[in-house]
Formats: sequence, C-alpha cells, structure tokens
Amino acid sequence: MRPITFLSDYGLDDDFVGVCHAVIARAAPDARVIDLTHGVPRHDVRTGALVLRRALPYAPPGVHLAVVDPGVGGARRAVAIRCAEEDRLLVGPDNGLLALAAARFGGAYEAVDIGRSPHRLEPVSATFHGRDLFAPVAAALAAGAPLGDAGSWVETDSLATLDLPAPRRDGDALVAHALGFDRYGNVTLEIAHDWLIEHGLKVGRALTVNGHPATYGLTFADVAPGALLVYEDAYRTLALAVNRGSARELLGLDLDDELVITPA
Amino acid sequence: MRPITFLSDYGLDDDFVGVCHAVIARAAPDARVIDLTHGVPRHDVRTGALVLRRALPYAPPGVHLAVVDPGVGGARRAVAIRCAEEDRLLVGPDNGLLALAAARFGGAYEAVDIGRSPHRLEPVSATFHGRDLFAPVAAALAAGAPLGDAGSWVETDSLATLDLPAPRRDGDALVAHALGFDRYGNVTLEIAHDWLIEHGLKVGRALTVNGHPATYGLTFADVAPGALLVYEDAYRTLALAVNRGSARELLGLDLDDELVITPA
Amino acid sequence: MRPITFLSDYGLDDDFVGVCHAVIARAAPDARVIDLTHGVPRHDVRTGALVLRRALPYAPPGVHLAVVDPGVGGARRAVAIRCAEEDRLLVGPDNGLLALAAARFGGAYEAVDIGRSPHRLEPVSATFHGRDLFAPVAAALAAGAPLGDAGSWVETDSLATLDLPAPRRDGDALVAHALGFDRYGNVTLEIAHDWLIEHGLKVGRALTVNGHPATYGLTFADVAPGALLVYEDAYRTLALAVNRGSARELLGLDLDDELVITPA
Repeated sequence: MRPITFLSDYGLDDDFVGVCHAVIARAAPDARVIDLTHGVPRHDVRTGALVLRRALPYAPPGVHLAVVDPGVGGARRAVAIRCAEEDRLLVGPDNGLLALAAARFGGAYEAVDIGRSPHRLEPVSATFHGRDLFAPVAAALAAGAPLGDAGSWVETDSLATLDLPAPRRDGDALVAHALGFDRYGNVTLEIAHDWLIEHGLKVGRALTVNGHPATYGLTFADVAPGALLVYEDAYRTLALAVNRGSARELLGLDLDDELVITPA
Repeated sequence: MRPITFLSDYGLDDDFVGVCHAVIARAAPDARVIDLTHGVPRHDVRTGALVLRRALPYAPPGVHLAVVDPGVGGARRAVAIRCAEEDRLLVGPDNGLLALAAARFGGAYEAVDIGRSPHRLEPVSATFHGRDLFAPVAAALAAGAPLGDAGSWVETDSLATLDLPAPRRDGDALVAHALGFDRYGNVTLEIAHDWLIEHGLKVGRALTVNGHPATYGLTFADVAPGALLVYEDAYRTLALAVNRGSARELLGLDLDDELVITPA
Repeated sequence: MRPITFLSDYGLDDDFVGVCHAVIARAAPDARVIDLTHGVPRHDVRTGALVLRRALPYAPPGVHLAVVDPGVGGARRAVAIRCAEEDRLLVGPDNGLLALAAARFGGAYEAVDIGRSPHRLEPVSATFHGRDLFAPVAAALAAGAPLGDAGSWVETDSLATLDLPAPRRDGDALVAHALGFDRYGNVTLEIAHDWLIEHGLKVGRALTVNGHPATYGLTFADVAPGALLVYEDAYRTLALAVNRGSARELLGLDLDDELVITPA
C-alpha cells in the first residue's frame, strides 16, 4: 500500500477535503494520507506547483494527489503521471500544477488521461473532480492498481508546463520577484542556492531591498526585531523576512512584484 | 474496528479537536479517524446537519461523530443512534444535528441516551462533552462495544428533528433560500435534483436571481469571469456561483435569505 | 511503536505542518500522529506550554512533539526529555515550551540536547528545525530509538523554566490575569480547582469582573445570551465566557490583562 500525500486550495472550512479523505478511506481503507496543506490560495496553480516541488522530496514515495483546479469541468485534462525517478505518481489537473514536481523527479516518464477512469465515482460532477476523479484514482493507485488501468495513455510531451519569472542582473542590482508568501509574511524569491553561491552574497553584508535597508544573514535573530533580513530559506532559496514581523507588509508586496536588491 | 468520521464547529485554532483525537487514540488506538470538517460556523446546527447528510454517503460505514452543541451542559440529551440502513452509528447532541443524516440512511432504528454512558470520562465537564462523552463513546463503538451498553434506550420517535425551508412557485418565479455557503462564496439552495428535473431548467437558459442576470449552466467556466451562474452542484442540489468570484458577496446574502429566480 | 502528538504555531495555511508529517511518515511509516493544534498564536511560547499541560494527560503516552520557536537558529537548545511519570517523551525547543508538561508528569527525569542528533536531516536549515531536527527525532523515538542515542545528555536542572502570573487577594477582590483565549472568546485565568474550593465560590453568586456584572455558574446556558459567566472550565480552571458571545471582546482583553473579580 503506497502512502498518499494531498495538497489543495480547498481550505478546511468546508467539507471538500474531508469528503476526499472519506472517498479514499472507502476505496483504500489501509492507505495513509498525509495532508501537505489545503491552504494554497484559491486558484493559485503556481503556488501549488511550487509547494509540491519543495515539499514532496521530504515525503515518502507514493501517490501525490494535488487539486488546484480553476478550470474544473472545462477543457483541461485530468491526469496521472509516473515520474522517471523513484516510485512517484502524481494525480491532478493537467494545468501546470504537477509540472515542477514532475521535473524534480526526473520528468514525466508516462502519463494517462483519467477523465473517464474506471476508478471514477459516477455520476462525475462538473465541479468537484477532487471527489469524483482525483481521490478515487489516487486511492486505486495507492492500493496497487497499474497506471495503465487508470486511464488512457497520453504523450508526456503534451503535458502542461509552467513558466516561472527569471531573475536578472541590472548593474550591481539583483532584480528578482515575489514568488510566494507564508503566514509569517516571509517572501520567497526565485533565486536558488547555486545562483547564490555563484554570485557570492556574504553573511553580514548590508543591502537595500526596494530601497529599504536590509542585512544578509542566516536566521531571524541575526537582525534586530523589526529589521529586514535577506536569507537562504529552509529550501535553500533566497527569501526575505522581518524578525518578529512581516516582510510582505513592510515592503507592500503582491505576487510577482519586482524586488531590487543592491549593496548598501 | 469501525472507522470514525468527525465533524464539529470547534475550529482548528484551539486544541478541542486535537484533544478529542487524543481521547479516541487512547481508547481505540487502531481506529481510523476521518475529519469531515471542523469549520461549521459556530453553533450552526443546521449547517452541520446538511454537511453530514451530503458527506456521509461518501464515507465508509462506521461511527459518525458530530458536535455542534450550543446547549452543552443544559437539558438537551446526548445520544448514539443506529441507522436503519448500512452499519451507520451517529454520535452527538440530540438537537437536530443528526436528524438529516439519520433520515438519509433509512431513519433511526434504535438509539441510546449516553449522558451517563459507562464509556464517559469522569468527571464529565459542563462545557466540553466532545471530550468527555462523545469522543469516548464513539471510540468504544468503533472498537465494537454494543450500542445497548453505551447508554440507556430511548424511543427513536423522541429524537429531535430539523425543519428546512421549502421552495415555492410564485407565478413564473421560483422562490428558494440561501441554505449554505462555502469558502468560494458559492450558495446552496434547498432544491434537489428531482425537483429540477420536474421543473425543467435547460442549460444555457438566461435567468435573473434577485434581479441580477444569470445563466443556467453546468460549471463555472460556462459563464464569463465575474458572471453569475445557476447550476446543479456536486451534490445535485441547485446552487449559485460567480466564476472566479463570490455569489454570496455579489448578492449580499445571509443564511435563509430569499432567492427569487425568474426567466430573463 | 509509540504514538506521536504534535503541537505548533505553524498554522495550516502553509506546508510547514504537512512537511513535518511527511518527514515522520518517511522515518516511521507506522507511527500514528495526533495533531493537538497548530493554531497557537505565532511565537506565543506560554500559550503553547499551557495547551500542552492541559491536553497531554488526555493523550496516550508516547512522543510529544511541540514547536513554538521564535529563537530558531539562535542560541536556544533543542531537546528531548523523558518525564518521570508514564512513558512520556517531550521533543522541542528548550525555551520553556515543554516546562509545564514536564512538571505535569513528575518533572524531567533525563534529557538530551538534540542539536546535533544523528537522526537529524542534513543540511539542518537555520529556520525550520521542525522539519530538520524535531520531527526526525520524534519519529526515531516513536520507532523505539533509545533517548541516549538521540543526542548528548544534559542536566535536567539546566532546562528552561516558565513563569506564570500569580493571582492575589486584594480586600474582597480576587485579582487574576487573562492567561489564554479560545476561538469563542472564552478567557482562561490562572486559578486552579483547588484554589477555588479553598476560597469557596458558590453557583449562582453575583459578581463583577472589571466592573461588569457577572454570575458564577456551571455552563453557558446558566446565564442569558449576552451575559457574562464566571465558571470552572473543562480543565477545572477559572474562566470567563459570554453566552453565545465573546468575553474577550466584552471586556476588551489582551494576554496578561488584570481581571478584578468582586462580589456584586
């Protein structure tokens, strides 16, 4: 029995998540289900994709169920994907949500369209594919059903992709973007560890971020309460925080806003 | 070992839900607990009852624990009910919360008052029966304890009932009510599938809802972003949505507000 | 396999909690994890400590993982503690969070510094010790690893303690403090059952709280809707509530605010 991870934008105020758990418990009573989060902002496919990419390497191989699905009931496909590396099966809408996770595990090795999967719950509703398609297919795969029985084969190069903003150099400024926020108001940028190593930021370095004074450091306590910190976060990507405060609020940021980081 | 589903209005900010899980884990270490939702609006017994009715058919038979209990510590009884159909045991306050779910499974077949159940945790507090009565009784039933040992028999026709508003025809208008809302601002009405079939709404039909232009369709993408959709939801009841917006907000609705739907 | 309880201030909007669950599932696939709550107010170590003290006696003995950690990455130690009573192992930051729970179970019997635990995930990040230290150590202990293998021994009398405000008599007034709030706006005070017994409050007694009329009673329904109730809560500590309202709001309270209770 494979474990199932589950991520969505359903929130926990309604019974969407609970009903998907119920469906899984009926079809695969012994499957362990690990909720990654259901707090992805509504319809925010890219944030969902980013969370999957960073979180799934910490999860055991198995079935990775994900539902952020603004186009439910429309033309987008529903898919199940086997990744090239490890025993990782991704189940969700084919709208880019699964693209970064697939790439993280060597790319999509094979994939099926599950829109008319024999595992589906009939009648399939137009608005709740989490319950009627994705959860039952995830449960069947967790219980050992072959991928090929879950739907009809599709070419992996037809799967949806996802574009991310790219950082750039502008003189001695680094221009990046607000890629995500957490509950603490910490801001994730699209700058990975390798890039940092190459461009050589040193701990203790004084910077400005959109004109605000900041310090490059290792952890929150490296700056005074209320001060702005530039740091490598727990996923080794560049991030902004305010010690015991909110960087998002201090800088007044929305998703994709530009961040200009310069030596002070 | 029967699975346990759990619904409440406890929210997840406090330890109410966690402590009930803890109590269950002590009494029935191997029981699987499926959280349906703990986001029922505070003290909203009817919403809890409606969620149970629609969600439980997707859950495996077993013990269905539910706590929305504004009268805790007062005169209302605490009960466990065996439904006439399947192996469905309902545990909760006798305030109408369990009435719709019982009816969904053929009605209450037999019931016990668990206010002084031998499974209770002593001393039973006046304000947290979820922990002291309902969770321990649910755990005992999950582990196979006979219903009759959980309390003292009561007549099933003495169990609390629950009234729902009724839709009506007014000329060519359909007058219904806002029965519930979800986090997306979608609005559930008290119109079931059979009624719809009988009265024959056709996909693509132009309507007005409280004077706002609307379209009868199948899914969100059937109308432009920001436009109002009338549709049969995933539970086959009539509902209102705004594509990528909130129907509740657009129409300024509270629970039980009238909705007048007319041909445009 | 010991069960694991888990409490934090991570909230559920992000993937912090889910990733810790994922880490545990990898290291201890059969461990049962009981979420106590992840809604502790951000960085509020004392509230976390109070919740642990009252909730853990309801949980089965095992591993009690707790993360409220404003000083993560700084000088504070990370520890695992064996309590003197029952088989209770506490895992978390050594900042007072575990102090009240340890005292509840007879005090710390032995403890290890897990900052460089062989169970840790490398590279240990500076900001997410829940994932890299606490969850993996908790999983290893759940799976039966000896405490002494999880880190290096430390003196138990070097463990952080936690001070609580103390109630006092002032003439015929009782002066106590707002120690905690729940989602209903109920307010917990630092007055335990024994103190109450000794000082003899009688049910039905008319009081004032910060000048507002109140009644000492057993449960919410003992006062009219909107009226203020003084009562012994489900953990047998003195508390304030407004029937179907919020005592916190009525009295305009923040943490630690003084509450002057006098006979009316």
